[in-house]
Amino acid sequence: MISINSQFSSGNIELVGDIEARPIALKIKADNQSEFRQWFHFKVNNALNQSLSFAIVDADKTAYPDGWVDYQVCASYDGQSWFRIPTEYAEGELRFQMDFEESSAYFAYFAPYSYERHLDLIHDAAQHEWVTHQVLGETLDGREMNLLSVGDAAAPIQAWVIARQHPGESMAEWFMEGFIGRLLDHDDAVARKLLQQVRFHLVPNMNPDGTERGHLRTNAKGINLNREWNRAQLDNSPEVLLVQQQMQQTGVDLFLDVHGDEGLPYNFVAGSEGVPRFDKTMAQWEQDFVAAFKATTPEFQDEYGYPKDAPGQADLSIASSWVAETFGCLALTLEMPFKDNANLPDPLTGWSSDRSALLGQAVLQPILAHVEKHLINQ
Amino acid sequence: MISINSQFSSGNIELVGDIEARPIALKIKADNQSEFRQWFHFKVNNALNQSLSFAIVDADKTAYPDGWVDYQVCASYDGQSWFRIPTEYAEGELRFQMDFEESSAYFAYFAPYSYERHLDLIHDAAQHEWVTHQVLGETLDGREMNLLSVGDAAAPIQAWVIARQHPGESMAEWFMEGFIGRLLDHDDAVARKLLQQVRFHLVPNMNPDGTERGHLRTNAKGINLNREWNRAQLDNSPEVLLVQQQMQQTGVDLFLDVHGDEGLPYNFVAGSEGVPRFDKTMAQWEQDFVAAFKATTPEFQDEYGYPKDAPGQADLSIASSWVAETFGCLALTLEMPFKDNANLPDPLTGWSSDRSALLGQAVLQPILAHVEKHLINQ
Amino acid sequence: MISINSQFSSGNIELVGDIEARPIALKIKADNQSEFRQWFHFKVNNALNQSLSFAIVDADKTAYPDGWVDYQVCASYDGQSWFRIPTEYAEGELRFQMDFEESSAYFAYFAPYSYERHLDLIHDAAQHEWVTHQVLGETLDGREMNLLSVGDAAAPIQAWVIARQHPGESMAEWFMEGFIGRLLDHDDAVARKLLQQVRFHLVPNMNPDGTERGHLRTNAKGINLNREWNRAQLDNSPEVLLVQQQMQQTGVDLFLDVHGDEGLPYNFVAGSEGVPRFDKTMAQWEQDFVAAFKATTPEFQDEYGYPKDAPGQADLSIASSWVAETFGCLALTLEMPFKDNANLPDPLTGWSSDRSALLGQAVLQPILAHVEKHLINQ
Amino acid sequence: MISINSQFSSGNIELVGDIEARPIALKIKADNQSEFRQWFHFKVNNALNQSLSFAIVDADKTAYPDGWVDYQVCASYDGQSWFRIPTEYAEGELRFQMDFEESSAYFAYFAPYSYERHLDLIHDAAQHEWVTHQVLGETLDGREMNLLSVGDAAAPIQAWVIARQHPGESMAEWFMEGFIGRLLDHDDAVARKLLQQVRFHLVPNMNPDGTERGHLRTNAKGINLNREWNRAQLDNSPEVLLVQQQMQQTGVDLFLDVHGDEGLPYNFVAGSEGVPRFDKTMAQWEQDFVAAFKATTPEFQDEYGYPKDAPGQADLSIASSWVAETFGCLALTLEMPFKDNANLPDPLTGWSSDRSALLGQAVLQPILAHVEKHLINQ
Repeated sequence: MISINSQFSSGNIELVGDIEARPIALKIKADNQSEFRQWFHFKVNNALNQSLSFAIVDADKTAYPDGWVDYQVCASYDGQSWFRIPTEYAEGELRFQMDFEESSAYFAYFAPYSYERHLDLIHDAAQHEWVTHQVLGETLDGREMNLLSVGDAAAPIQAWVIARQHPGESMAEWFMEGFIGRLLDHDDAVARKLLQQVRFHLVPNMNPDGTERGHLRTNAKGINLNREWNRAQLDNSPEVLLVQQQMQQTGVDLFLDVHGDEGLPYNFVAGSEGVPRFDKTMAQWEQDFVAAFKATTPEFQDEYGYPKDAPGQADLSIASSWVAETFGCLALTLEMPFKDNANLPDPLTGWSSDRSALLGQAVLQPILAHVEKHLINQ
Repeated sequence: MISINSQFSSGNIELVGDIEARPIALKIKADNQSEFRQWFHFKVNNALNQSLSFAIVDADKTAYPDGWVDYQVCASYDGQSWFRIPTEYAEGELRFQMDFEESSAYFAYFAPYSYERHLDLIHDAAQHEWVTHQVLGETLDGREMNLLSVGDAAAPIQAWVIARQHPGESMAEWFMEGFIGRLLDHDDAVARKLLQQVRFHLVPNMNPDGTERGHLRTNAKGINLNREWNRAQLDNSPEVLLVQQQMQQTGVDLFLDVHGDEGLPYNFVAGSEGVPRFDKTMAQWEQDFVAAFKATTPEFQDEYGYPKDAPGQADLSIASSWVAETFGCLALTLEMPFKDNANLPDPLTGWSSDRSALLGQAVLQPILAHVEKHLINQ
Repeated sequence: MISINSQFSSGNIELVGDIEARPIALKIKADNQSEFRQWFHFKVNNALNQSLSFAIVDADKTAYPDGWVDYQVCASYDGQSWFRIPTEYAEGELRFQMDFEESSAYFAYFAPYSYERHLDLIHDAAQHEWVTHQVLGETLDGREMNLLSVGDAAAPIQAWVIARQHPGESMAEWFMEGFIGRLLDHDDAVARKLLQQVRFHLVPNMNPDGTERGHLRTNAKGINLNREWNRAQLDNSPEVLLVQQQMQQTGVDLFLDVHGDEGLPYNFVAGSEGVPRFDKTMAQWEQDFVAAFKATTPEFQDEYGYPKDAPGQADLSIASSWVAETFGCLALTLEMPFKDNANLPDPLTGWSSDRSALLGQAVLQPILAHVEKHLINQ
Repeated sequence: MISINSQFSSGNIELVGDIEARPIALKIKADNQSEFRQWFHFKVNNALNQSLSFAIVDADKTAYPDGWVDYQVCASYDGQSWFRIPTEYAEGELRFQMDFEESSAYFAYFAPYSYERHLDLIHDAAQHEWVTHQVLGETLDGREMNLLSVGDAAAPIQAWVIARQHPGESMAEWFMEGFIGRLLDHDDAVARKLLQQVRFHLVPNMNPDGTERGHLRTNAKGINLNREWNRAQLDNSPEVLLVQQQMQQTGVDLFLDVHGDEGLPYNFVAGSEGVPRFDKTMAQWEQDFVAAFKATTPEFQDEYGYPKDAPGQADLSIASSWVAETFGCLALTLEMPFKDNANLPDPLTGWSSDRSALLGQAVLQPILAHVEKHLINQ
């Protein structure tokens, strides 16, 4: 008999009513101690050769209902290779359909990146000769806050890249896997050139508790980490505090915070226009970075994005704003879509884990451009 | 600062006292609602270039204290490649020593096999053309009981191989990975010959809750599944009941139950001498199987093993006894060591995940010998 | 326009008449300075979506016309993955048919094993800690005679395995690749047990000139090496002489010479019944080896094979006879089919490179059985 | 005893005098029917644990003696992984030194790319859904002239990339392997964007005969193909003629001809300044391409390169000049070093096969920039 299961890393779904009903009615569970919910991840078993319809029945009550417009659900037979399936958002429901060619299939908001894979990523990288690994401390659930530092400890420039403050934005960690892979490639000229000047500090997963728990946006205690940077505390947001303490030690000359956006079908960055110390220099940095990124890959654009903060109106609880104001450096929030890049759509996969990783590789080029133009010989 | 972490799949350790003490004093947590404990699995972080000593301080109070004699702890820098480290069992303590060449290292009773890897194993195999996959039902924690059936549904012979009733015996699932890999190899003649006559029913992990929880021997409720076969109930041991129901449908012509043994440094099988219906035919089956297995690999032997049950004295709560008595077939418990095979020791790895997988490949040969000699044209 | 090309390693074909004719008429070129011919290997280009028929028009005049009966031609789109295509031997012609799903396809008598792959095999193995590599000397065309010696130089038992005296029998080198792979697997118990007692001397390719030239049976000068063992000379058969000189230094306690047979659709061995010193002990060795090999894999059998030589009638120019007589050891010619194993046929691939490699892995078991029963504690 | 062997694909060396002499004296053979010589490729066998010195004794008489200045010989134990060894050019000799950690080592002017690997490259790519493969015809030795066409046959823009007119410049084919790999990556945005507008015609090896023969610069008949473009004939330079015929059918909107340069330790391009129709538009194209390439990778530069031709002084026998003049498009000769990129030196590997492949990946970016800026919406 058909069954539904989400008892695994980052699983999240609730069966509403009868498994025999069509469509099968589902709800997404809210993050612990929070009302945020939009991430789902579950399996359907014993369904070989069946054509099944599903509905997330209160999709209009989730955190970002507009995110469901034009969104296609991700499915996979093996949990490795993901594809998009026909999906419709109508009458407040997210409806999707699957013709099962195997007995089981996974469904998710986006290709998941588990805590176990995170640990493998950390330990593979940690064995590389250029890498120093440390555990900064523990999360509220007792998981590790892992930091990889790459390059010469005496490098004049300190760059920080963090990802996945919001655990449901799994594309952020796929991005980091690509970023790290290229950075550690001995033969890659961009990486080698960067490491002549820059030490990178990388936090591939800022929120392992939320990851494992199947949260959308918050940590074990329901805290949105990206609203904690000017008030991080050990009992609420140790994830942020631990990283800030390390940042204070190293300084920060460049900062990227990697995210996914539920609504916009584009890759883009948000800058620091609203922070008090924002000035023409910082504006130039952003403008040059965006131009270099656009020249690197058609996946990146700046036509669509968030409205810029008015001068002085930045929310300093947000990571990139806090870093920009604290360290006076280029600090960007980088957003990838849950849907697709509408400039280069791929109906089969939509935006995907592989494309996220390639974007993580590509970003080394605008970083190098920034370093060479603005940070050397100033 | 050095830290210890076990907040991950199958993690199990408790720090006793101060992390600054040397040796670092540790205890193993008991299985939930049970006194069984012997499985450990943890990481030590931020220890690069340090030489650290550890002691499991109440090792003499664990389930099988004799298992610590001549046992060497398993360690790994990446969680993939495991090696043995200097270990001593003395004064009731298990003492071991590690010179850290990386900042972090994993330690475990044996190379772990996580529930996530289990799901990958299932779904990789399930996509093979020869395989039917089904989820038989759920465990007490809500995890899946996965069954892979391989070969023609109309095959005259039904063979069952189950593993890891005791979740701490992770070698049992490595064995299954090897077994499945060879069985699904189109080019392997032993596999192809078997599948002309036999349908295999494989349960690579009988106890996923215990696996994920870091248990030694029991399920989520502290139940030893291998003492439930004549009394399995849905609220105590659904894992066993679900498998038995399926067995009743298919019948069983051959049965293997794969385990690890804490004490004996050998691979061996235990048979069904004590079941009421045991007779000369069944004795001959066992004898021939053992001879064929010995001829296949030097890893297998029959000099050392468990004492045979006296006639009629078998415990029918044990899987292989219950199956032998119920179905009148060859039914064996297969044991691998936690330590090493003393007949062919490898000080670097001891008994290992790779050797377990190779043994799982090798066992196809005595199975084929049994099928050809005793099950065809009877 | 369709074209035919054989200008590459081990290529051999000749277009007869017009490429526009159907079937396309082909001939196989004879070995240099020899009349042997049966090996073919060529590509057809620019044939996408075409259905083409071919005929080797004088197939009845090749070395072993009976070999074409029930033989299916091997084809491949990439030179890596090979399959069988519909083939008929009629009216003295070998006729086959191909529906091209790509623009180019390779055709061959059997999956080729090039000299370049041979060098890769040698150098991969040579870097293994257990291996000593040496070049014994040069062939008539100036290629290397490569020898791999595996195991302790002081081992009490010296085993020799040579392959591909007849270069068209490429399955012999696939067999060696499997053999070497298993022998060098640190985790394989059969290999480790063997290497406690045995040093192996391996010549994966006895005839690199014939290999590169696309010969069936002979070396650069048209000499059949397996008729040279009692008369090897540097100017005719340096390949044999160089190996014999090394054998004299090491001694030989066990010998396998690996071949392919054009006619019989079985794997089998030929022994040394006809050599003068053949006696009951040697007969027992053969009998036990065959029994152990049969118990290891359904690919091996002894019902079909060559007629045994009458006492004293062995041809001592043949490698296994010469070795048996010279060293008084178990010496076997091992034959694999060009067609398929009729006991376990696979219409898709027939006998194949992968199955050859698996047989090379399997043979370690009867070798170990022989060593343990007959060569230790004599 | 030590021996030297070059009887394999692209092998080239000659032992002068005695193998016992130190240094071992060597000469490079000239291309057939030509005086060009500089490419070498050979193995030294049976040298385990020896420290050997070598001298190419007439290095000052080879084609480009200046190429030896600051050049380091490439060595490899397995023919796959190459590294540089201590080398000195003095008194007209190229002297190098090797401490053998294995019994055999390969030495070469640059990491070789064999004809067999070429065929594998072609057939792997040919199976990709976006690729059309054809054999344009045959070389003088009867090898295939392989063309891969990628993308929509109706694309408005036709780009041609050819490589290795000079067979000793093996880096050119490593470059193509990288280029093709990225172009066929479904997830790569630059590739996907390009293929919306462009059909690529790729000739990874213009000179397979020279490749197999171990030539530096010419084809089987000693002809320098890159001096044939305004006079190609079937009996002298069919390689060029066949490609030109196909170019006439498709037209050419963009052209790259990939080479290696013996002297300059840099990557650079040479343009078409000297062709009669050169004008400001073409100058702008070159300038923009160079700028975009520089922005893409630190491996590329334009400070060092060839002197530009004076107006009207171009040699139209050269591929890029002939194409520029014939088709009025951007046509460049791309040069990589045999030595290293002096702007980003890696003493361990020098310029390498991996870096060549990465450059082949990187060049897609300036090509896309050119297409978007100059070829669309003209």
